[in-house]
Amino acid sequence: EIAAAVEGLLAPSGPLAGRHVIVTSGPTHEPIDPVRYIANRSSGKQGHAIAKAAREAGARVTLISGPVTLPDPPGVTTVHVESARAMLEAVEGALPADIGIFAAAVADWRVANAGEQKIKKKDGALPSLSLTENPDILATIARRTENRPPLMVGFAAETEHVIEHARQKLAKKGCDLIVANDVSAEAGVMGGDSNTVHLVTASAVETWPTLSKTEVARKLVERLGAMAEGAKP
Amino acid sequence: EIAAAVEGLLAPSGPLAGRHVIVTSGPTHEPIDPVRYIANRSSGKQGHAIAKAAREAGARVTLISGPVTLPDPPGVTTVHVESARAMLEAVEGALPADIGIFAAAVADWRVANAGEQKIKKKDGALPSLSLTENPDILATIARRTENRPPLMVGFAAETEHVIEHARQKLAKKGCDLIVANDVSAEAGVMGGDSNTVHLVTASAVETWPTLSKTEVARKLVERLGAMAEGAKP
Repeated sequence: EIAAAVEGLLAPSGPLAGRHVIVTSGPTHEPIDPVRYIANRSSGKQGHAIAKAAREAGARVTLISGPVTLPDPPGVTTVHVESARAMLEAVEGALPADIGIFAAAVADWRVANAGEQKIKKKDGALPSLSLTENPDILATIARRTENRPPLMVGFAAETEHVIEHARQKLAKKGCDLIVANDVSAEAGVMGGDSNTVHLVTASAVETWPTLSKTEVARKLVERLGAMAEGAKP
Repeated sequence: EIAAAVEGLLAPSGPLAGRHVIVTSGPTHEPIDPVRYIANRSSGKQGHAIAKAAREAGARVTLISGPVTLPDPPGVTTVHVESARAMLEAVEGALPADIGIFAAAVADWRVANAGEQKIKKKDGALPSLSLTENPDILATIARRTENRPPLMVGFAAETEHVIEHARQKLAKKGCDLIVANDVSAEAGVMGGDSNTVHLVTASAVETWPTLSKTEVARKLVERLGAMAEGAKP
């Protein structure tokens, strides 16, 4: 970590030198009441590995992280948030950026009637959780007219029809690249150290072999470096 | 840890020598679909500290733990579970016991219509989560006619009317002692290292000063040792 810190003080070099990269990582937690919440399963390992790889490629990196048990990557500005709304606010606060990589598993819904006191169990009566849609962070940022990062990357964690869902997501969200993976229990990706991903753009699908999350991060950052180079004015 | 392991091989001594203690700890996670779940906030620190203190007091300890990031305490048989139903099953499988200490923050409800595939976000339409009541582990075990541990301890994490709710819980669940605490955000107990607890029995309420969770565990185990001694046939 000292080596990384010292490196950070030197003039950055590498394919992403001079670039600002925003990465989101981890799950979001949406409160039901002070002691209960709805969450997505996400260890944050892939997102944190990407933040680290982008830093190593010379970028200035802002990592917006939901609740995870991982340490903050050295040399990376890390902002800790809990809910999807707080995550969107933090992303907006970190703009402008050259590349946005949205790896967090953001909860699609939150509880509209979240209680300020613990909901008590009453005989037989079940509490009714009224759900409301969370902001779509990827789509909100990708559709900005001002300060949209020129290169926007989304993630699609699917349990079936992985490629098909990723293509739909790419079009619907207005981003430039989707990293899709199969998170069904059989695939063992969730919480694990390896990942099998498909890179989906408007014109192509590329399937990578199973790699460690660190390797996926490095290859992805390398690819984004090349794409960002092409996108330069 | 080596010292503790070696100690475990010697004939156990201490106030709980020869006793079997079951401790539950941590939250439960109740699946909504393969990637989403409902959870209770609980670090498991207090429950794990109690398992460790009971072991140090000479007991044979079975710890049934929900998803936490803590290491298994040395010398303690630890069973890892995710849902409330799995936790109840593990507790029943660990009976008979002399003392049951139910420190886990068990989710009161689970989703009745949990999906096997990831629920997709559809335009405008919100999924409806139909909730159903989880088994009440404390009450189920405390009301057993066979193999009920002679000493049953429950926990009450409250955000208001702490003592009043604890008294009600004691009567309703049929347990012998409730350890109650205030988990409102202002109290800072959740995830923290200290705890301010009230011991509530049918006849008395005792409030302890703010102590580390380790100290609360030691004092509680000491007290239970004295109570178990009194309860001997």
